[in-house]
Amino acid sequence: MNSTPPSGFRDFLPGQAALRQRAAETIARVYRSFGYQPIATSALEDLAALTSQGGGENEKLIFKVMRRGEALERARAENGELADLGLRFDLTLPLARYYARHGSQLPHPFKAYHLGPVWRAERAQKGRYREFWQCDADIVGADSWGAEVEIILAILAVFSEFGLSGIEVHLNDRRLVERALETAQVPPEKRDAACVILDKLDKLERSQILTELSAELGAGPAAAVEKTLMSEEAGAAYEALGPAEVSALRRIESAVQAVAPDARLRLSPHLMRGLGYYTGPVFEFRHPSLSGSLGGGGRYDRLTAVFGGPPVPACGASIGFERLLLLLEEKNDAEDPGSPDVVVTVFDDSLRPRSIEIGAALRAQGLVADVFPGMAKLKAQFKYADQKKASWAVAIGPDEAARGVLQLKNLRTGEERAVSLDEARALIAA
Amino acid sequence: MNSTPPSGFRDFLPGQAALRQRAAETIARVYRSFGYQPIATSALEDLAALTSQGGGENEKLIFKVMRRGEALERARAENGELADLGLRFDLTLPLARYYARHGSQLPHPFKAYHLGPVWRAERAQKGRYREFWQCDADIVGADSWGAEVEIILAILAVFSEFGLSGIEVHLNDRRLVERALETAQVPPEKRDAACVILDKLDKLERSQILTELSAELGAGPAAAVEKTLMSEEAGAAYEALGPAEVSALRRIESAVQAVAPDARLRLSPHLMRGLGYYTGPVFEFRHPSLSGSLGGGGRYDRLTAVFGGPPVPACGASIGFERLLLLLEEKNDAEDPGSPDVVVTVFDDSLRPRSIEIGAALRAQGLVADVFPGMAKLKAQFKYADQKKASWAVAIGPDEAARGVLQLKNLRTGEERAVSLDEARALIAA
Repeated sequence: MNSTPPSGFRDFLPGQAALRQRAAETIARVYRSFGYQPIATSALEDLAALTSQGGGENEKLIFKVMRRGEALERARAENGELADLGLRFDLTLPLARYYARHGSQLPHPFKAYHLGPVWRAERAQKGRYREFWQCDADIVGADSWGAEVEIILAILAVFSEFGLSGIEVHLNDRRLVERALETAQVPPEKRDAACVILDKLDKLERSQILTELSAELGAGPAAAVEKTLMSEEAGAAYEALGPAEVSALRRIESAVQAVAPDARLRLSPHLMRGLGYYTGPVFEFRHPSLSGSLGGGGRYDRLTAVFGGPPVPACGASIGFERLLLLLEEKNDAEDPGSPDVVVTVFDDSLRPRSIEIGAALRAQGLVADVFPGMAKLKAQFKYADQKKASWAVAIGPDEAARGVLQLKNLRTGEERAVSLDEARALIAA
Repeated sequence: MNSTPPSGFRDFLPGQAALRQRAAETIARVYRSFGYQPIATSALEDLAALTSQGGGENEKLIFKVMRRGEALERARAENGELADLGLRFDLTLPLARYYARHGSQLPHPFKAYHLGPVWRAERAQKGRYREFWQCDADIVGADSWGAEVEIILAILAVFSEFGLSGIEVHLNDRRLVERALETAQVPPEKRDAACVILDKLDKLERSQILTELSAELGAGPAAAVEKTLMSEEAGAAYEALGPAEVSALRRIESAVQAVAPDARLRLSPHLMRGLGYYTGPVFEFRHPSLSGSLGGGGRYDRLTAVFGGPPVPACGASIGFERLLLLLEEKNDAEDPGSPDVVVTVFDDSLRPRSIEIGAALRAQGLVADVFPGMAKLKAQFKYADQKKASWAVAIGPDEAARGVLQLKNLRTGEERAVSLDEARALIAA
């Protein structure tokens, strides 16, 4: 049996697992400081719910879960759909379902945060995983541009908490893109394809994009699209597409900038954020030392309506946890994988209970005390203390047990002496 | 589209989600205090790995994930296995795979903790979920009874941290059960069935068990099994099955009892802990006010060998997170779902930036400041502050903005006055 995880999936060594755990706790704390409240949903959703958005690249990447027992037999016999459930591919669709179900019991507007793994059956490649975490903040029930500001500020506060500065915030509005394509007389059935091409503007040369656009749309519409959407910054043609929408983006920009002077905000006419559920402003966060985005989001005013009831205005963003960790791993020394303050060695089975009691007494004082759990020569036990990066080790042989003392060794200096339990506690805690 | 989660799956409201999050953090902290280090593995494992234990009830409950793309087409065409992956049904098998792969980079012995969801396609019923959390502590690479002690003490320390007292710890050794069945001349092919029947001793009447055993094994073997295994406490016949094994159990019992005087330890000859991978001592934790167990574990010395390499002695236990939460929910008032210290209201769009700045300034002082993210009458914004259980609200109208002050309202007393930002900070933080 192979011991590697399935392709595209990962194991985390203690140092990595500790870093991930601490980063998630930090993100949650920053979100809470803005008044976002935690929610949790299940990993599996009904397949019908996951595919209810009609399109969107992510739907093609769903891990489908097979029906079970008789239902599977029936589906086989009737040549029906063999899967009934799927692993969630993001946290936004589950939130929309959650809000449709629980909205009446929640504050209005509802500020939620949601941290957890999502799954996509991407082609396995370096740096792209099939299981990865997202850390979302959302506001449901507010159609003011104030919601966008509260979302963007929370995401920037997370990055700032991790000491990341100079974050770029790209802003756009999906309605302006739609209008630009309409104005350029791109037929409705070609608009998705045009968006997919424009979305590559960060990765490909401008001339390549233009060639692709011309091939797809013809030279005239391609030139018109170029004029409004392919500039790096918003120009007059872009402004003319929707003065009200552009003005709302400018308000968001200026309110965020006032509180986060270090962030670099700009209106990016070609920003798409995928083809999915966004209906208004969209935004994306980038870090100067990382290609691609560190997260992003936008407004999705129609998503809750998919699950019944009226459409509720909503807006949110997701932090790309895996990319954030790449930056943290570069930046930090390795995270402490949980080093004990002290390893309590075990002389033999007859004295093991004494070591166990001393471990418990040290823990009762708030110390991390690791009692050696096996049977080995003292030398191997000191090696264990080294592997665990402990600062102190304690030994209790028959002589120490008889005298009611313990041998305390400072593993940094090598210094060693017989002390009482109280002295040991004081020295280790110092 | 239905807004309820799939059958057997759950959404968590903010109060519940906050309680779960905090409980998981507490468990991790207690495990760390014993020197356990965090690990993490993926939700999905190769189906072949999950089913490699040949038997065990849990294998029947695996959620299977379908192959994708061409591989699926090929499997269909060849009438082959349509699934290649499965959701993990526990955290022990993934740990064994993890250790087989990474063991050489880890301390020896390796004390690991592992928290996360597992999935089982159980028949949906009240109190039984298809996605639930486990919180495992394991020691790999130690064959001493000291490992069992360190595991049991860590689990008891978690319960103690939550204020749960009087925990029963039931101990047994799978080898004694095996030997009792052998001595009673139960043929090998009937031993699993006998174990399944004995395992019900906590739920059914003793006479019912005996009837079932007689039907399965015949009256003679059933009577012999009764004599050794069906007593509540270890008797002479049980002791005779394996003096060395019973003596090890007694050592574990006495070492744990010395450090955890409040726990109620006992040798329970009929304790099984399922049919799975256990090879030696097994144990189970129960709480007087809860039927069934709060967790359990045991020694599984052959599990790592499944993934290649030599067998490594291992021992671990799992806390039943969902059952623990049942107790905590009964015990506690509802967990704070993340109440802000202060809600900053918004007078209108022109003054929104001022409210946003004040929110940021209050957060910079370590306060949880929730800026109202929508557009609504002040009355609705105060209702929002009530819904969020905030203690204070701030209002800034044109007059306050012009004077450089803010209106601070104590939502507990209704008292309200104009103060400077510094005064507001001091009052809210007090």
